[in-house]
Amino acid sequence: MIRVTIWNEYLHEKRNPEVAEIYPEGIHGAIAKYLRSQQGFEVRTATLEEPEHGLTDEVLSRTDVLIWWGHMAHDKVSNAVVDKVHQRIIEEGMGLIVLHSGHYSKIFRRLLGTTCSLRWREAGERERLWVVAPSHPIVEGIGDYFEIEHTEMYGEYFDIPSPDELVFISWFKGGEVFRSGCCFNRGRGRIFYFRPGHETFPIYHDPNVLKVIGNAARWATPVQRPKPATLSLAINVKPLEKLS
Amino acid sequence: MIRVTIWNEYLHEKRNPEVAEIYPEGIHGAIAKYLRSQQGFEVRTATLEEPEHGLTDEVLSRTDVLIWWGHMAHDKVSNAVVDKVHQRIIEEGMGLIVLHSGHYSKIFRRLLGTTCSLRWREAGERERLWVVAPSHPIVEGIGDYFEIEHTEMYGEYFDIPSPDELVFISWFKGGEVFRSGCCFNRGRGRIFYFRPGHETFPIYHDPNVLKVIGNAARWATPVQRPKPATLSLAINVKPLEKLS
Amino acid sequence: MIRVTIWNEYLHEKRNPEVAEIYPEGIHGAIAKYLRSQQGFEVRTATLEEPEHGLTDEVLSRTDVLIWWGHMAHDKVSNAVVDKVHQRIIEEGMGLIVLHSGHYSKIFRRLLGTTCSLRWREAGERERLWVVAPSHPIVEGIGDYFEIEHTEMYGEYFDIPSPDELVFISWFKGGEVFRSGCCFNRGRGRIFYFRPGHETFPIYHDPNVLKVIGNAARWATPVQRPKPATLSLAINVKPLEKLS
Amino acid sequence: MIRVTIWNEYLHEKRNPEVAEIYPEGIHGAIAKYLRSQQGFEVRTATLEEPEHGLTDEVLSRTDVLIWWGHMAHDKVSNAVVDKVHQRIIEEGMGLIVLHSGHYSKIFRRLLGTTCSLRWREAGERERLWVVAPSHPIVEGIGDYFEIEHTEMYGEYFDIPSPDELVFISWFKGGEVFRSGCCFNRGRGRIFYFRPGHETFPIYHDPNVLKVIGNAARWATPVQRPKPATLSLAINVKPLEKLS
Repeated sequence: MIRVTIWNEYLHEKRNPEVAEIYPEGIHGAIAKYLRSQQGFEVRTATLEEPEHGLTDEVLSRTDVLIWWGHMAHDKVSNAVVDKVHQRIIEEGMGLIVLHSGHYSKIFRRLLGTTCSLRWREAGERERLWVVAPSHPIVEGIGDYFEIEHTEMYGEYFDIPSPDELVFISWFKGGEVFRSGCCFNRGRGRIFYFRPGHETFPIYHDPNVLKVIGNAARWATPVQRPKPATLSLAINVKPLEKLS
Repeated sequence: MIRVTIWNEYLHEKRNPEVAEIYPEGIHGAIAKYLRSQQGFEVRTATLEEPEHGLTDEVLSRTDVLIWWGHMAHDKVSNAVVDKVHQRIIEEGMGLIVLHSGHYSKIFRRLLGTTCSLRWREAGERERLWVVAPSHPIVEGIGDYFEIEHTEMYGEYFDIPSPDELVFISWFKGGEVFRSGCCFNRGRGRIFYFRPGHETFPIYHDPNVLKVIGNAARWATPVQRPKPATLSLAINVKPLEKLS
Repeated sequence: MIRVTIWNEYLHEKRNPEVAEIYPEGIHGAIAKYLRSQQGFEVRTATLEEPEHGLTDEVLSRTDVLIWWGHMAHDKVSNAVVDKVHQRIIEEGMGLIVLHSGHYSKIFRRLLGTTCSLRWREAGERERLWVVAPSHPIVEGIGDYFEIEHTEMYGEYFDIPSPDELVFISWFKGGEVFRSGCCFNRGRGRIFYFRPGHETFPIYHDPNVLKVIGNAARWATPVQRPKPATLSLAINVKPLEKLS
Repeated sequence: MIRVTIWNEYLHEKRNPEVAEIYPEGIHGAIAKYLRSQQGFEVRTATLEEPEHGLTDEVLSRTDVLIWWGHMAHDKVSNAVVDKVHQRIIEEGMGLIVLHSGHYSKIFRRLLGTTCSLRWREAGERERLWVVAPSHPIVEGIGDYFEIEHTEMYGEYFDIPSPDELVFISWFKGGEVFRSGCCFNRGRGRIFYFRPGHETFPIYHDPNVLKVIGNAARWATPVQRPKPATLSLAINVKPLEKLS
């Protein structure tokens, strides 16, 4: 059974009644409900204000895939926790799904090495996500495109490395495009960035958005195999063949 | 005219007479000589023990392509200099050529986001670099492969993101392979990792190795165009089209 | 249950007693036995000299993943069958695993668009396959590398498009390297080229080789989703948004 | 000096007065004028109704980069000419720039191996091409995006292999997106697909469109190096190292 931990900054919901009305159990609660009831995953949640942000060694060691939502407090996430998450992805193969404003999280920027900057606009406009990777398991059950009626806009140039696989490209009413579903392989881990989502829109109640998150969790689940000898450190090795 | 700055840690040459004999003017001096006399580039050099490691704002602002060789003192490079080099690559498009043991430099690891770890062995064995990207400008003038008779071995798994373009794969006598010529695009900048080189082998006197470095400098030279609006920071924009 | 059809040219086994001794039930028989008994797949086989080469519409419509082994009679495969297989991959998402000398098959060359040419030598030398994609499901259960003691050599430059994911790089005793595990996405279909295999070596009895073939079949199984509207032909569409 | 041959079907201009008014010297004439006067290239043109479609062995042997525009008569292009063009790209490194409706040309489909199908609409709507590869030489002199006020729409899913480098993504007023600037490496050759262009819109008088075509021709110019030994055919080789 796939073990998912959903990390949510969980500040907007506590401070803003408008957000609390959309997500009474938090953004993490909305996603957790779907992944438990519709996908049968084993689901934990963790939030910023818990000790170690809820991401203790024990929690991480029981997590196959970590989902990350943050927005206003990226800087409050401790570097020690980011180091541990990074290590668990690269060396142990934990999957990572970064949602929406998580593009600016410490862990995503650390993994990608670029600024992860972008254009944005909060005008509640229409987004249409077009599938450009029709053979990818992340689009299982998804048609040629799906729409989100009211959303924040993210536009290019999105400063990321070229994705290892580009799955969705978004169209926005206001005139922009965005690479909104991006797969990255880093070390033993698999990372999926998925654009949709905002605290003041009910994005994480949308059936297509939830389906993609579920598909992504399956895709990002670690492969069972011995840990590569070189992941923790460079190793000095003897020749496998005679040298003379 | 392409303006290249060659950065060398420059410690082995000062401390080890064997290295000093191979590179009397330093590794940077050997590469500089070739790039000046054979390629006609404008070449500067910079080293660890100079103030700001020789990479002042003025030097960086006059550098199209930075070549990086380091080995025993990666940790001695100041984070402030790494930050400036990173910014100049991502935002201004300065090219970066990382040589050999530079795989473990702060700037390379920051740009790639992975551990950049690998297998290694110092046995003076034969390496054969096979071209797998026959249309790439970096292999101009290079045949199906070239050989280095005595070299240190680097072997897989090399913990890097999948290169945007893989140019060379190395064969080693002792039984390993290595992705030894790797192109990465990050922000406005282009990065080339090139494996050959070691302080105790005369690798940077080899005509094929030097030719590849010269080709890579041309490939990594910044493209002239306006700076993307989103590179320094996320920008809030007005719609380009009517929203209703 | 994954439905696999193994296609084998099946001429060497009938004509050459040495090959028949290694593969008394044909190369297809050896692979089928493993996939049935160890993986629990539903397995069919098909061969060149059957009517329509055994690949009737009915067989193809019941095939999730097609495995292809051919060598001496690529030209005997009818273009009509190649057209149908191509269409089923691109439009319906059937997976394709191309083995060894299948690099020169009509279907592989049609799908990749290049010559698929390479270096080769039949000297029974050692091959060592290094994993360069540690997070990929195709290397489940495989360590840092595995060896084949006696095999035919294939060497670079291998004239293929850059793989969408490069999984294995081979080292050969005689001095060559080869991209020996390559993933390609084409239309709705997923293609895996896997180098090991030869009619006069018992490669398809090797447990690592068989494990990789099983993993690849799972990876290449079609994703369930509506067929993209544009796959069979360009379609003229009305605007989704008002144009003025 | 870069030697460019512009191939144009050249039927619309001869049959449709509206098209002839926009392109009195043909689409090839408009592009040729820019590449000669503004880029200083050596430019030839060739058209469908000439003997061998104007692409004789002599013309091809003097062509560094071939630009291809076709629309209504793809099937009239002889397979023998397509074979020669394919061979010259793969084996000799001739560059190829495929424009707009050339997505359905025989040579493009042969090189890519997929159907190259797409959505389309002729409604004269606005297109905005966003740069997603800010370090690429093809966007030299181009800002964050450029616009074409009235154009035919092409939309996803565009059935091509994932491009080796994705340079532009188009936004269309009517609600679609499109990968409109795509780089592919095949054998020794480099291929650029560029979407803009239609016979009834003055696209090839647009300064940004022309600039991109000029940049692409420079990018696609063949690299000078020995022809890989394996490109024309598989070669049987002796070991480079002792086998025992």
